[in-house]
Amino acid sequence: MNEVHVGTYCSVAATAELVATKWTPVIVHDLSEGPRRFTQLERACPGISPRTLSERLDMLEDQGIVLRRSYPESPPRVEYELTDKGRALLPIIREMRKFGHAWLIPEPVPSA
Amino acid sequence: MNEVHVGTYCSVAATAELVATKWTPVIVHDLSEGPRRFTQLERACPGISPRTLSERLDMLEDQGIVLRRSYPESPPRVEYELTDKGRALLPIIREMRKFGHAWLIPEPVPSA
Repeated sequence: MNEVHVGTYCSVAATAELVATKWTPVIVHDLSEGPRRFTQLERACPGISPRTLSERLDMLEDQGIVLRRSYPESPPRVEYELTDKGRALLPIIREMRKFGHAWLIPEPVPSA
Repeated sequence: MNEVHVGTYCSVAATAELVATKWTPVIVHDLSEGPRRFTQLERACPGISPRTLSERLDMLEDQGIVLRRSYPESPPRVEYELTDKGRALLPIIREMRKFGHAWLIPEPVPSA
């Protein structure tokens, strides 16, 4: 295996680990539509517990994917948004969605 | 969460599970260059054991991603190749590689 192969291996494997963490693609996809508050993200993640969502958001902040902004209002407002690195994940998620619909799960028909 | 969101969630999550399985992206990437024999795939996966590679290839065959062709020669020749479904994973892997090089691991300089 030459160095280019090693590089491909490592960069794909590292990214795979990142996008396959449960909830990460859903949170990133939801934030692609704009900044979100905690309760909005909770609604986007079916069945997630507040504790898990909070841990996941901390992790995404540590990974430089999500930015947490708090506004000194009363009551204080906290919003989450994607960083440039977070937005760079979107093409992967789009391709994953396309593959999933084409090969794994049929596209749902939106209810009228 | 509306049905379109549920669909996005499920298709992305199902695909994430698939591409994040250790070695799957590397094997699919290697097979994108053409049919491969077992020993060639072994070289493409640094540190994989023959047993793990064999299990992974069985799994990829069950998932409809890899096709195993055996040629009645002496000694018998077995080759693995991508199915259409397997090839449909390539845009995801390409985007993962791009992201990895840009944000996680720098692109290696090929040795002269």
